[in-house]
Amino acid sequence: MNRKEFRDLASPTEAREAIDSLSIEGGVERVSLEDARGRVLVARLDAELDVPGFDRASLDGYALNARDTFGADEADPAELDVVGTVHAGEEPGVVLESGQAAEISTGAVMPDGADAMVPVERTDVGGDVDDRTDENGESGEDHESNETVLVRTSVAPGDNVMFAGADVAAGERALGPGTRITPRDIGLLSALGIDEVPVRRKPRVGIVSTGDELVRPGGDGELESTRGEIYDVNSYTIAAGVEDAGGEAVLYPHAGDEQDEMERILREAAAECDLVLSSGSTSASAVDVIYRVIEEQGELLLHGVSVKPGKPMLVGRLDSSAYVGLPGYPVSAMMVFRTFVAPAIRRAAGLPEPESATVTGRMARDERYGEGRLRLMPVGLVTDGDGGGGGNGNGAGATAGNGAGASDTLVYPVDKGSGATTSLAEADGVVEVGPETDYLERGESVDVQLFSPDVRPPTLLGVGEDDPTLNRVLDRLDNPRYLSVGSRPGLRRLREGIPDVAVVAGPSGREHGLEATELGSWERDWGLVVRAGNPDEIDGLDDLVDRDLQFVNRTSDSGLRTSLERALADLAAERDAETGTGTGTGTETGTKTDHHNLATQIDGFDVGLRAHESPARRVIAGEADAALGLRDTAERLSLEYVPLGTQTMHVLANPDRVEKASVRELESVLADAVVDDEGLSL
Amino acid sequence: MNRKEFRDLASPTEAREAIDSLSIEGGVERVSLEDARGRVLVARLDAELDVPGFDRASLDGYALNARDTFGADEADPAELDVVGTVHAGEEPGVVLESGQAAEISTGAVMPDGADAMVPVERTDVGGDVDDRTDENGESGEDHESNETVLVRTSVAPGDNVMFAGADVAAGERALGPGTRITPRDIGLLSALGIDEVPVRRKPRVGIVSTGDELVRPGGDGELESTRGEIYDVNSYTIAAGVEDAGGEAVLYPHAGDEQDEMERILREAAAECDLVLSSGSTSASAVDVIYRVIEEQGELLLHGVSVKPGKPMLVGRLDSSAYVGLPGYPVSAMMVFRTFVAPAIRRAAGLPEPESATVTGRMARDERYGEGRLRLMPVGLVTDGDGGGGGNGNGAGATAGNGAGASDTLVYPVDKGSGATTSLAEADGVVEVGPETDYLERGESVDVQLFSPDVRPPTLLGVGEDDPTLNRVLDRLDNPRYLSVGSRPGLRRLREGIPDVAVVAGPSGREHGLEATELGSWERDWGLVVRAGNPDEIDGLDDLVDRDLQFVNRTSDSGLRTSLERALADLAAERDAETGTGTGTGTETGTKTDHHNLATQIDGFDVGLRAHESPARRVIAGEADAALGLRDTAERLSLEYVPLGTQTMHVLANPDRVEKASVRELESVLADAVVDDEGLSL
Repeated sequence: MNRKEFRDLASPTEAREAIDSLSIEGGVERVSLEDARGRVLVARLDAELDVPGFDRASLDGYALNARDTFGADEADPAELDVVGTVHAGEEPGVVLESGQAAEISTGAVMPDGADAMVPVERTDVGGDVDDRTDENGESGEDHESNETVLVRTSVAPGDNVMFAGADVAAGERALGPGTRITPRDIGLLSALGIDEVPVRRKPRVGIVSTGDELVRPGGDGELESTRGEIYDVNSYTIAAGVEDAGGEAVLYPHAGDEQDEMERILREAAAECDLVLSSGSTSASAVDVIYRVIEEQGELLLHGVSVKPGKPMLVGRLDSSAYVGLPGYPVSAMMVFRTFVAPAIRRAAGLPEPESATVTGRMARDERYGEGRLRLMPVGLVTDGDGGGGGNGNGAGATAGNGAGASDTLVYPVDKGSGATTSLAEADGVVEVGPETDYLERGESVDVQLFSPDVRPPTLLGVGEDDPTLNRVLDRLDNPRYLSVGSRPGLRRLREGIPDVAVVAGPSGREHGLEATELGSWERDWGLVVRAGNPDEIDGLDDLVDRDLQFVNRTSDSGLRTSLERALADLAAERDAETGTGTGTGTETGTKTDHHNLATQIDGFDVGLRAHESPARRVIAGEADAALGLRDTAERLSLEYVPLGTQTMHVLANPDRVEKASVRELESVLADAVVDDEGLSL
Repeated sequence: MNRKEFRDLASPTEAREAIDSLSIEGGVERVSLEDARGRVLVARLDAELDVPGFDRASLDGYALNARDTFGADEADPAELDVVGTVHAGEEPGVVLESGQAAEISTGAVMPDGADAMVPVERTDVGGDVDDRTDENGESGEDHESNETVLVRTSVAPGDNVMFAGADVAAGERALGPGTRITPRDIGLLSALGIDEVPVRRKPRVGIVSTGDELVRPGGDGELESTRGEIYDVNSYTIAAGVEDAGGEAVLYPHAGDEQDEMERILREAAAECDLVLSSGSTSASAVDVIYRVIEEQGELLLHGVSVKPGKPMLVGRLDSSAYVGLPGYPVSAMMVFRTFVAPAIRRAAGLPEPESATVTGRMARDERYGEGRLRLMPVGLVTDGDGGGGGNGNGAGATAGNGAGASDTLVYPVDKGSGATTSLAEADGVVEVGPETDYLERGESVDVQLFSPDVRPPTLLGVGEDDPTLNRVLDRLDNPRYLSVGSRPGLRRLREGIPDVAVVAGPSGREHGLEATELGSWERDWGLVVRAGNPDEIDGLDDLVDRDLQFVNRTSDSGLRTSLERALADLAAERDAETGTGTGTGTETGTKTDHHNLATQIDGFDVGLRAHESPARRVIAGEADAALGLRDTAERLSLEYVPLGTQTMHVLANPDRVEKASVRELESVLADAVVDDEGLSL
């Protein structure tokens, strides 16, 4: 195929210009007042009536002529004849003459001849005009008996009256074009009786995902991991981003990599939408189809942008629709969407750019880069400080920053590797690193653009071992973040000073030469997780060594793996002692050799999985007979548990953060938890 | 009725506590991933699978054994046999042995026996194993011919591979309870294949409006102003506020003041909703019904709060629902809703309080108060500064603050009088004035809580005469605010230094002794607006004076009224001259007398309406034969226009703001507008 050539990557500015040159506006629609909140007016709305439409009593009291009250006061009230009553919602049945008043309710129409009103609190009921000796002076609903009212104050013309048009006057400019309608504006529109408004139609954004390996969540059937299937992350994520930006997302059926089907769906989306976003497949054939369809039915404006992540972006037109091809990797797709596409959707929707929510912090560690492209670096935030010396913040159970002591925001890059789908859920915002920057130094000040103004960075950052009890502890905290990187990497990061706490299995920090405060600890039972009912009658490590069983291990980062290796060393020593092959009590070297010997006899010892539940799930899948795991996991997954030992979980605080409110809160949750045979109960 | 007594007003804190004591949570519901954005998780979600579920190639290239590449470099590539191909979405058909490689695509499953991969860019196609002299070395789709690959770099185990569970590990805590789901979280949920999540149900908030005078917008028929009908402002406004706060608003049919019907609707709402809000009627009978129903079926916790506006608030329980009675006046209802009810709805919805968007400014004028209650004072904001001496900001057409010169935010109270429905649409936020504060002094610093974090205070504040041409001018500006208070009050406010510009009809500021810069001006035709076709054959002022016609005037604030009085004076002078009753040329006193004489001969001269369109609309309604108005208005409303004169509209700038970006923008719009016989055309 004769492809249009794009030799150089476009600059980010050129990419923005290319997208801006596309028209993705959705036109105009009329919506009812009930649906108008947040929508954007396309035209000015003028008042077509006066509000109120009549001179209106502002209080309960008496309508009268102001000049009849001149000089009246507490000592010398003016006495007026009450000639009628006006309720709200009814036409006045009286016309006042000099010396007359009418009882009137709040909101009622001022009768002709009245130019002011006096609140009922400043009046007394007078006598009957015809018979002033009548003692029954109470005010009735009607005033046929010509009673009088004593007015104990003087009022000026207009007092306590809202004149017609005083609120809004007919012909007034009510709301201008481009107004984003707030509840307060809905009040104004209601007052004017406007029940339908012309607003910008939300731009329709079609989302087409391709790729044979992608399965949409909620579709039929399980993921076939052996075939390399993964769930389609981009479709729903981009759809949510489109709606956040004020567009209407239209998800098209997943197209696979079949060329005719992909072409059919792309064309359908282009016919129905203002903008088509494709994402998903990175296969060359998918790119070929997109190229061909765009060159036949549109125009390709740009291929490739000098930005990381996001290089393989496409911008063009497809029939009458705009088109942007997003990279396949979810993090790249979201970063490109956020940086280049969302602003264009907001503009088309008539929404302003959100108030830039920017946090300034300092780099928690050195970060090298230097690829000469603009880098959009997702980062997490953690508050440093609130700790150290002074006696401040000693109140227990503090839940918010205590203000005392300097606090500072640390910024750490979030990168779970190329192709990670979930990194952004662990990030708070983005640092833009210019193409000329080779590296960012630890401590260097950086500006973080939060993903949205309502992002709340986590109150607590924890790292370390994954553990079911810990998960329940975290549920008690307000907005914690926990990165389950394993015990050893957790300790390493704590040593670097980034997280607030590390959770480690087995030996505590002190044994690792780490200066850290232990906030709490609990025991967990570990052992072998085997099939329900233990059909293979596995009793312990001996069976793994001596019998032909398939085992699944954890990675060497994990605390359980360390415990397993120790148990194996103990077994080796025991066997040495029994058989007398060792040097008596089992020296380091002798035992070590035997431990490795035993390990090589276990089928699958080297298959280390990262997640604490993954080995057990291999047992469920029938791929293994026994897995390294926790009793808790076995019980939760309805598997059998063969005990091998217990292990202590330690929660260690960063020495600089022991006074941080969230760290103290964690300490208090741990102290309150009941420790019994079951471990830590919450 | 034996009412529970509430002798003292509750404090705002007591009111908050009373509302907090009510349960308005909506329970739990499950929503699909497509609808999950912005919802609040009720439970922790753990990963139930590894992501990816297999060891995954991160790039296009070759899967291999890292140890087969040790020592390889550009000069001395390693040569491996290519024994197969693995595409994304398919199960590997090969198992690698030492010295072998498999071609692999991004996202594909690493074959057994491979522990790393090398990107295609670092390889060359080698020769055919069987026939190395074959010159056709291109890589085909299949590798049955046993070709080889030259690897020009060494890789370490794990390079360019994302191991199973490296993104998310089974058993990991994915999202904690209370998480408000962002698009990034939707990415994580998608990756885990979770297509439905348990979230807090939005609290259902029923809105019951009462009052015989209220008509809901969009109902049948016109408003009957003579009966004192007004549109129901509270229902839709509060509904929008409920939805802003994360609740689901349910509007009940408007109940009028009929007691049985009101009781039926209140009970229906209480049965169906978590919270019932009533608002609207201030009539005693409505309050009676609410009292009775609550005392029979619930409990009244509080009546009356020491806050202004908002004193008559009710808090209680109605059957199993919470109940809050809002004041009837729309501004009061919204302020009470915003201060007391919205936070409770947000809490029930699990949403955090929005980031407090606070602006500090200084009072634009003295404001007295001193009622001993907390005052919630709606205010508008205007930016001062950017003006004066220096040569800064001289670039034309600047649209944003130019940064040079000190700028400062002025805060002015917005108060259109008791019962105004629309004040809040002209306000940007609220200043809380403590009960102990008697007055705020001009220049005093105050904190303004913006109505929401995305409130954008207007760029330009204008005041003065209402004018159709001006409305079109304003449409050209970004987010202006214009208060049509009339020419004279506009000049007065400009003199006080609050607005950026004033628009006055007739004499310019200079003639009023005001130091102001004229930004532009245009002419407008004014005269009598009469019925279409002019059936009464009205030719001018003479007809009004001499014939039995009903006239409608404007208020004396208006520039047109001033022009009319001058025209009447001229007519009087003319008649004096004709009849010789004056002193020849018409002295001040002589003319003045005659002008008043003529005015008294015009039926309706004293009926002055505030809005420029209102008199013309009286003609349409058949209530008048002629109205003071503009040619523009007559034409727009399809009425006839009888010319009396032209009038100059002046746009005057506050001398301190002539360099403010929005003022310069207005000047530029005025300069670009075409002035022709039709006035200013845009």
